[in-house]
Amino acid sequence: MGRVTVRRKVTKIDVAAAGSATRPDTLSVEEPLELRVNGTPLTVTMRTPGHDIELVHGFLLTEGLIRSADDIALARYCEGAVVSGESGFDENTYNVVDVTLAAGVTPPDASVTRAFFTNSSCGVCGKASIEQLRAQSAFDVRADPMEVAAKVVVSLPDALRAEQRSFDKTGGLHAAGLFGADGELLVAREDVGRHNAVDKVVGWSLQNGRVPGVGCVLVVSGRASFELTQKAIMAGIPALAAVSAPSSLAVECAEDAGMTLMGFVRGTSLNVYAGAHRVTTT
Amino acid sequence: MGRVTVRRKVTKIDVAAAGSATRPDTLSVEEPLELRVNGTPLTVTMRTPGHDIELVHGFLLTEGLIRSADDIALARYCEGAVVSGESGFDENTYNVVDVTLAAGVTPPDASVTRAFFTNSSCGVCGKASIEQLRAQSAFDVRADPMEVAAKVVVSLPDALRAEQRSFDKTGGLHAAGLFGADGELLVAREDVGRHNAVDKVVGWSLQNGRVPGVGCVLVVSGRASFELTQKAIMAGIPALAAVSAPSSLAVECAEDAGMTLMGFVRGTSLNVYAGAHRVTTT
Repeated sequence: MGRVTVRRKVTKIDVAAAGSATRPDTLSVEEPLELRVNGTPLTVTMRTPGHDIELVHGFLLTEGLIRSADDIALARYCEGAVVSGESGFDENTYNVVDVTLAAGVTPPDASVTRAFFTNSSCGVCGKASIEQLRAQSAFDVRADPMEVAAKVVVSLPDALRAEQRSFDKTGGLHAAGLFGADGELLVAREDVGRHNAVDKVVGWSLQNGRVPGVGCVLVVSGRASFELTQKAIMAGIPALAAVSAPSSLAVECAEDAGMTLMGFVRGTSLNVYAGAHRVTTT
Repeated sequence: MGRVTVRRKVTKIDVAAAGSATRPDTLSVEEPLELRVNGTPLTVTMRTPGHDIELVHGFLLTEGLIRSADDIALARYCEGAVVSGESGFDENTYNVVDVTLAAGVTPPDASVTRAFFTNSSCGVCGKASIEQLRAQSAFDVRADPMEVAAKVVVSLPDALRAEQRSFDKTGGLHAAGLFGADGELLVAREDVGRHNAVDKVVGWSLQNGRVPGVGCVLVVSGRASFELTQKAIMAGIPALAAVSAPSSLAVECAEDAGMTLMGFVRGTSLNVYAGAHRVTTT
């Protein structure tokens, strides 16, 4: 639990130096997390342990299963998920989280479960599914009047990186951060899976009264896929800034929902792919 | 179909130059692909169109549904998957592939389907699932006596990059390539999803008599996750080299299967995390 990094032996080879050395190195931890809702297994994700309760809150919100923190009555590690520990006693794996939905909240049926297992895919026809997505989100990001200065946006990746405690050790973690339009960092999370990093941020937001994410900017350390764009819209966040490139469907999705999508935020420059009216340059 | 990149308008802002300009930019295409097996929808993946038949071959092999190319009787785009085109006539989306398994090949049952939808997750306990994985693979990569020179390994990322026709335009695609131990490139594929790039390479291998991938090295442009390591083992490839970091579970998985796992292959150096006996330095 909370094992973000581990030490392992690694053989380092440099062909220029014609030498090799074996020494301990730090790796990002990747472990499965099973999410059970009202006793039924819903999904398994490969994640970096830590902030798991946030992760399941964010996942359930961005996948459209819940709309507020109140929809979850209880979320805790399963007491029965144990393995034989080195001590000889059973140890909890902390790899199963049980969620009990509040009374009156409909648990996922088989068809919804199937949709989750497709990993945020959007059906067969991109167009149809983007329309479907907009209908699913409880929040209208198009109506958010927020504006953000370009000079603030270009400062956000460095601010996020400064919060990445593990990346410098391992080079192996994605990060996501939620910022106010003035550049104030609200929360930053890391994970081997980029979607998990976003779900942890959204889960924190949900637990701290920040959903919908009115007036906020979500920053991600890598590329902007359809999946991440969709998650931001589901959390009511009006702007997404990625350090790397967006995909075609991410741009279509953002445009369709009225969200601002920025990419290649590096040094002093950025690209705005959708919702440019929110990005001020004066 | 085959739309690897698209052109979209983008607003470019540089806060140092205090200016902005709107001009066309090239984006990586991301679209959903639905895979149906014997008429039943199995999974949907967000992928870059192109080499879709390879993709479904690779997916079915690396997920353990088939063991050889002969297990597939037919794989083709669904003729009924149409949308209204700009011409006013219906156009095929090329986003649905129908696979008919050969006579005698068992179609996936509900529990297998569920496992697919969990996106290559390995169950609850990492240890147990790694053992389960080894049992699932039809090939024993541990028995592969191949060796590869470190000086060859460090040349592979550049060789792969040289094949990435789209990345230079978009900065948004992952790549995977299969190489012989002498450094000969066998195949390279790109995709917005790293797992899809690997599945396309494996699908090509399956269709070209290269499964199991005896004596080969799989090279990936990003990080080495459990999922990619698992896919390589399922395809009988004894060595995986990643440009970036591996995760803890990728290393455990490689060690457990007797596979060679290399990471941070950059410039003249590399790290060997498992199976170092295959990497020669003299």
